[in-house]
Formats: sequence, C-alpha cells, structure tokens
Amino acid sequence: MRAIYPGSFDPVTNGHIDIIKRASMLSDELYVAVLTNSDKSQTFSVEERLRFLESVTNEFPNVKIVFFDGLLIDYAKKINADVIIRGLRAVSDYEYELQMAIANKKLCQEIETLFMVSDSKWSFLSSSLVKEIAMFGGDLHGMLPDFIINEVEAKVRRR
Amino acid sequence: MRAIYPGSFDPVTNGHIDIIKRASMLSDELYVAVLTNSDKSQTFSVEERLRFLESVTNEFPNVKIVFFDGLLIDYAKKINADVIIRGLRAVSDYEYELQMAIANKKLCQEIETLFMVSDSKWSFLSSSLVKEIAMFGGDLHGMLPDFIINEVEAKVRRR
Amino acid sequence: MRAIYPGSFDPVTNGHIDIIKRASMLSDELYVAVLTNSDKSQTFSVEERLRFLESVTNEFPNVKIVFFDGLLIDYAKKINADVIIRGLRAVSDYEYELQMAIANKKLCQEIETLFMVSDSKWSFLSSSLVKEIAMFGGDLHGMLPDFIINEVEAKVRRR
Amino acid sequence: MRAIYPGSFDPVTNGHIDIIKRASMLSDELYVAVLTNSDKSQTFSVEERLRFLESVTNEFPNVKIVFFDGLLIDYAKKINADVIIRGLRAVSDYEYELQMAIANKKLCQEIETLFMVSDSKWSFLSSSLVKEIAMFGGDLHGMLPDFIINEVEAKVRRR
Amino acid sequence: MRAIYPGSFDPVTNGHIDIIKRASMLSDELYVAVLTNSDKSQTFSVEERLRFLESVTNEFPNVKIVFFDGLLIDYAKKINADVIIRGLRAVSDYEYELQMAIANKKLCQEIETLFMVSDSKWSFLSSSLVKEIAMFGGDLHGMLPDFIINEVEAKVRRR
Amino acid sequence: MRAIYPGSFDPVTNGHIDIIKRASMLSDELYVAVLTNSDKSQTFSVEERLRFLESVTNEFPNVKIVFFDGLLIDYAKKINADVIIRGLRAVSDYEYELQMAIANKKLCQEIETLFMVSDSKWSFLSSSLVKEIAMFGGDLHGMLPDFIINEVEAKVRRR
Repeated sequence: MRAIYPGSFDPVTNGHIDIIKRASMLSDELYVAVLTNSDKSQTFSVEERLRFLESVTNEFPNVKIVFFDGLLIDYAKKINADVIIRGLRAVSDYEYELQMAIANKKLCQEIETLFMVSDSKWSFLSSSLVKEIAMFGGDLHGMLPDFIINEVEAKVRRR
Repeated sequence: MRAIYPGSFDPVTNGHIDIIKRASMLSDELYVAVLTNSDKSQTFSVEERLRFLESVTNEFPNVKIVFFDGLLIDYAKKINADVIIRGLRAVSDYEYELQMAIANKKLCQEIETLFMVSDSKWSFLSSSLVKEIAMFGGDLHGMLPDFIINEVEAKVRRR
Repeated sequence: MRAIYPGSFDPVTNGHIDIIKRASMLSDELYVAVLTNSDKSQTFSVEERLRFLESVTNEFPNVKIVFFDGLLIDYAKKINADVIIRGLRAVSDYEYELQMAIANKKLCQEIETLFMVSDSKWSFLSSSLVKEIAMFGGDLHGMLPDFIINEVEAKVRRR
Repeated sequence: MRAIYPGSFDPVTNGHIDIIKRASMLSDELYVAVLTNSDKSQTFSVEERLRFLESVTNEFPNVKIVFFDGLLIDYAKKINADVIIRGLRAVSDYEYELQMAIANKKLCQEIETLFMVSDSKWSFLSSSLVKEIAMFGGDLHGMLPDFIINEVEAKVRRR
Repeated sequence: MRAIYPGSFDPVTNGHIDIIKRASMLSDELYVAVLTNSDKSQTFSVEERLRFLESVTNEFPNVKIVFFDGLLIDYAKKINADVIIRGLRAVSDYEYELQMAIANKKLCQEIETLFMVSDSKWSFLSSSLVKEIAMFGGDLHGMLPDFIINEVEAKVRRR
Repeated sequence: MRAIYPGSFDPVTNGHIDIIKRASMLSDELYVAVLTNSDKSQTFSVEERLRFLESVTNEFPNVKIVFFDGLLIDYAKKINADVIIRGLRAVSDYEYELQMAIANKKLCQEIETLFMVSDSKWSFLSSSLVKEIAMFGGDLHGMLPDFIINEVEAKVRRR
C-alpha cells in the first residue's frame, strides 16, 4: 500500500510525527507531502518545512518527504498512491475532512482516504497554536522536537 | 407562500440548483436573492452571478432572480416574504445557520427560516471548492451546469 | 401547501405548540399526526394524546389532529402531504433528523422535509424531560399548558 | 496488511458491502467479523448473518467471513490483524467511533483503527432503519441485495 | 463555594477521581452525590458505590460522599449548593449536558452548572466501557483504582 | 476563588454581561480581561472597550476590569487566578474552547477552565453579529446596553 500524508506542516508538530510513525508502519511507502500553494501565507519556507520533516523522519526508511503544488488528488494520482492518510483530532476537524474525502473520491474513485485518530495527548495541538504560544514566549517543550522549538522561537519572534 | 433563497452564488452550483428546484415547487413565488455586500471579495460580478442564475432557472416560471445589499431580513420584509429558505449539508453548516435563523427571528417575528436538506450527492459541493478545483485544472463536470464550467475555468485561470 | 407534523406528543409540550402555531401559518392545511406504533411504550394513550392536541389547537382552523400507524412516508403520501415539518432544537436532534429526511426522500421523491428552528426558550424541553421532572414533583409551569400539567402529574405519580 | 471489519451485520446492507469492497482492495486479507455477544437481541441468527455475508463477498477472494465473541481487540490480536476498519457516515457515528478507537489503542498499541468514509448515497442507511422500513411494508430496493430483501421481509413480518 | 458533583459512579473511574480532585481544590465543600433512582439498573449497590467513593476521596478533607433520590436540583437546593460540577469529555456529552444545565437553570435560577474538561487521557473512559471490558476479561489497569478493579472483575464475571 | 473572564469584548454584549454577573456571584474576585493583541483588527479601541465594561459592571463590587497582551495563561498566572471562566453558546464554540482549555491546562496545571452555559436567549448573539446588524441599520435593542448601542451605531456607520 502506497500512502500519502499531505499537509502544510508549518511547522511539523509532535502530533504530525505520531501520525507519520503510525502510518509508516501500515504502508509499504509513505509520502509525506508538503502543500506549497502560494496563496496561503506560511511562516516557514518550503525548504525549512522539508528540512524539519527530513530530520524527524530519517529513522523511518519507507517515508519519503516531497512537496506539491495544485490539487492533492492530482499529485496522489501522479505518484500512484492507493490511499490518502489524514489524522483526526476533534469533531470540527472531521466535518471538513469528511467533505474533502467525499470530494476527492468524486475526483478519483481509485484513491481512498483513511482517517487515523490522533493520540488524545495531542488533541489540543496544532501548528498555529504552537506559533501563537511561541509569539508570546510560552513553553513549547513536549509539543515539537527540540531543534524545531529553537527555530520556531527565532522565526516567530523575529516577525 | 412567498419564499426567499439568499446566497452569494459565486457561482451557482448544482447543489444550489437542486434547492431552487425543490423550493420552487413548494412556493407560490421564490426569490433567489444574490447578496451584493461589497466587503467580501467575490470571483464573479453581480451581473455574472445574476446571468448564471437567470439561465439555470428560466424553466421555473415562479422563480425570480434578484439582488440585495444590507441585512437579509430587511430585504425579506421589503418583498413581503413569508419564509427564508436555506439548504443544509452538514453539521458545521447547521450551527451557523441555526444562529442566523434565531437572530433573524429576533429581528422579525413574522418571517420563518425553513431548512431543506441538500441531496447527499451534493454534500461535498460548495462554490469555493469548485473554484479551488478549477484553479488547478480539475474536472468540474457534474458539479456545475456545463456553460458555467467554461466561464469558471476562464475566470479562475485568468486570475 | 399541505403539511404534516408527526410525533409521539406524549404529551404535547409548549415547544410542540410553538412549532404547530408557526407551521400552521405557512400551510394551507397542517396535519398534526400522532404516531401510534405499539412497540414503544407510551405514558399517555392515543386518545389522551389526541385530546391534548385537540385542546391546544382548536384556535387554529387549518390544523387537523390525526393518528397513524406504520411508516410516516406512507401516511404522508396517503393524505397527499407536500411537506413534512420537523422542529430542531440542537445538533444532536439534527443528526438523526437529517438521516430520516434523507431516508424519506429516498422512499418518496415528491415529499420534502422542512425544518423549523425551535424557539431558544424551548431548547431544553422534551416530553421525556417533562415526565422525569413530574415524577419527582418538580414544577412544570411554563413547559406545558396548565390543564395538561394536572394530567401529567396525576398520571406520572400514579405509576 | 491484515484488516478486520467488525460489526453486527444484522443484516448486511449495501453500505456495508461498499466498505467491504473498498477495504478489501487495500488489504492483503480482510476479515469481516460478526459480533455474536448474546446480550444484544438480534433479528437474524449468527448463521443467517454469516450466510448473507458469504453470499455477498464470494467475488472477493481475500475476504474471510468469521465470527467472534468477547472483546474485539482480543479477537483482532488473535488473528494478528494490523488494523481495524470502520465506516463513518455522520458526526454522531464519529463521536462513538472515536471513543472506541482510543479505548482500543489503549488496550493494544499495535493495532490501528482506520476510518473510511461511507459513500454519501448510503449516508441514511443502517440495519435498524432497514428493519423498520420492512416492518411496515416499505420498499427496500437499492438498500440491500435482492435475495436479502426477501429474507428480511419474511423474517420481520413473521415477528 | 459549595459544589455538588452528581453521578451514578457505577463504579467510580479514574476520570471521575480526576474531576473530584480538581473540583475539590476550587470548592470550600464538594458533595459527591450518588444518584440512587431505582428505575435504572445498576451493577453495584448504592452501598458499594458509596464505599468506593469514600475510599478514593479520604485524602480530600473537604469532600463529602452522599446519595440522593429524585431531582438533582431539589437535592442541590436542600444542601445549599452554589454550583453543580460536570465533567465533559466529548461533543456528544456536551449536547446532553447543555440541555440539562439549561433545564436546571430554569428550575432554579440560583444554582449554576460549571463544566470542567476531563483530562484528555480519560477521554475514552466511562463506567459502562469499564464493565464491558471486564466482562470479557480485558485489562483494566490505569482505568480504575486497583482495589476497585478486583471488585469489578468479581462482580461482572459473577453475573 | 479568583477568576478571570477573558475576551475581546469588541463591544461587550448582553450575553457577556450575563456571564459576568453570574460568574461574579461565584467568585471572590472576578477579573474581566480585555485582550489587546495588536494583530487582530478591532472596531473599538482598548480604551473604549474598557470604558464600556467599567460602565456595565460598576454595580458589581468584586469585578475588576483589566487588559492584557500576550498569552492568557501567563496573565492568569501573574494575577494568581484560580480559574478561567468561559461562556458557551453552541457546539461550535465548544470544540474550540475545549482545545484551548486543554492547551491552557498543559501550559499551567494549577489553573482550571470552568465553562458556564450562556442563557439560551443570548445563543444567537455575538459581537461580530451586532456590528453586522449595525452596519446595515438594524435594530440592536435588547442585544446591548442602550448607551453602547449609540456608540456602536456611530462607530460602525462612520467606517
């Protein structure tokens, strides 16, 4: 089974890493795919986001870090993915994810979306929350890998 | 029963058309009302949105295409509407719609909001999703009337 | 427009009466239909439930109190209803009601389900809550018409 | 990947069959597992439910119909399943399923729950709705395979 | 502030204990109140449930274990409680709790309901899940205090 | 118990005032704290928002109006708050509030978030809805204190 786990990863959090680890154990190949559409302003450059992901996944031999522009479903078709992996935290996630899964199924019958439940200890965690906490000097330990904490703090305060 | 079905219709989708068709069969007169408040940036001009709606509803003799600026409830009062029609797709729609229905009831006791359930085959469909798919060259057939697909593709790619 | 507003009405509450009143103003004829399927144990007999409904609706000339057994959609077809009216209080109502509306649409394309929002002052109110309060001697004023309060208290305590 | 798709399947519906078909394409082996705990009263016997499932899955060579008693997670461990497959229809499903997925993860870290989205055309469909429709002589075509419709009608009316 | 934390506690779980501990730190006095209405069949007797609660709260000097029959709001008034404490786990809890909080406010304006969020590590945990796991010999460690695990296993298997 | 009730209060509505009043009766001291982070554009200046709050709370002797910049949890720690008070209206509120409460608990174990249910008569009300209604000349009576209505109308129309 070839899987794709798409996202902005701006930056990758411990919640994302948990899904990557668990999804990689179920897949022959797992593509972690950074969405690079230019119309949404991001804190970290594509290069930085890819570098973070490379660092935190180099222990997983079947994980490949990639980026794409355009429709997820087109990229998923191009790499011959069988499934799209999405992590779910709460009901509000679910509504949006359900809509996207149905839309993607309509655009391509052959590719399934599979949802994994985030570990409840990450249920509060999101990239944007992490940046908000960092902006005001809050403590990020346990939310991000240590080397990323330093970069987030430097980047966000510089703004 | 005089009904008003308000929206941005930017552009009208097959999901909207399904609601218009079903609502027109329950109403003596159905006003499909395009909201033209200038503070939200739209892809299509008011004229284009009205033209699309005129085209897709000309087979329904009791449907009237109009536009309005300001509070929906004021316009509904002005045209002597008995009910406001809204289509519901998912729970997330419902929360917002419920709040608006209660607010409109408070502003005018005489006008009721009636909700119709979108056909489940349109549950994934929204004007903004359609434009996102078009922006990246995805296939819009079955989501919009054919003549609108051409206009959406031309418009969105030109941006 | 001929409408049907189905329910157990065991007993009718002020929340139901609010929906009946508002729905009757939108309909040419409104059938308030008591479901009499024997497999769900009810507190009040069909006769009592019909009598309560007759009393509280005798000021609305276009409201007709009826009862039915079997599938709602079959009864709705039999009386040539155009729409089924349902009141919504909260999100949990909505999920179930959405499923039933889609099922009924599948069983009969011609009959629409229209949802009306319960007035927020009845959002906590249900027939079963009323009976639970009555069972322990709580105060039901403002939840039910006064003559029904007496009957509920007598019935529920007698059990 | 060895997957288990558990349920009561009382009886199997077209919605279940859709999930079985899609899950079987992602799995090396898919165990469709009928829960036989005696404390919940079922309409069809375990033998009938297994027979229905055998009939509708004999075209899928990697699907195995089994039954189990006790905790799902214990049976999943016993057959060395990698994942538990669950179909999701609506938000109300999701809440319960999320809780069970977290509980199962706690009972066994190695087995993941993967959620697949039901096709929106089955969003209204459940085994209990099917039986309710059958009880009152409603039309089940398109909800169940034809040979099961006959058995459901015979069984439910006999009650 | 005098608080009441009502429930069935059949049996008390680590999730309940977490709420008791946190609520006791905010209250001058915290009444943990076991509901003893006879119409819902319970696994443990009132005496057993009270004994479990006494054992797990004897380190909290301002916690008092009590039981009551009838309407919560009447008992809360009788003991002069200022607030009712409820723990929330998920959205599905919330809908029901919201309805009860509004009903209780209507029955008594002076007593407030305060909701506390359950620690996410208990989000999957409920008394009924614990009993289901026990019934099939699953591992309850980390879900209940150890001495209760033994009693639950003995009780549930004896059934 | 020292409590903090944070918000934008842009402007304070009757729904906020209801929560302030009820929370002040449960607290020894209640800090109503205006968030002044500059990155979200506000309609009213910090001074105006503080002035509105001072006016509507001067009858509550234990309420203190303050403002803060940065992380709520840091300010709550600085003033030695025991609890954070939040009002809940609907399910959509709850999802976000639950996530923030869990995040704040992680950042500081000692401070609890307590949720109070908004009176159902304010369930439709929000600062942004009020401004939208004002912008188009709708009637704000019953939503805001009268002296604030005047200021909102003047401010919003001037824009």
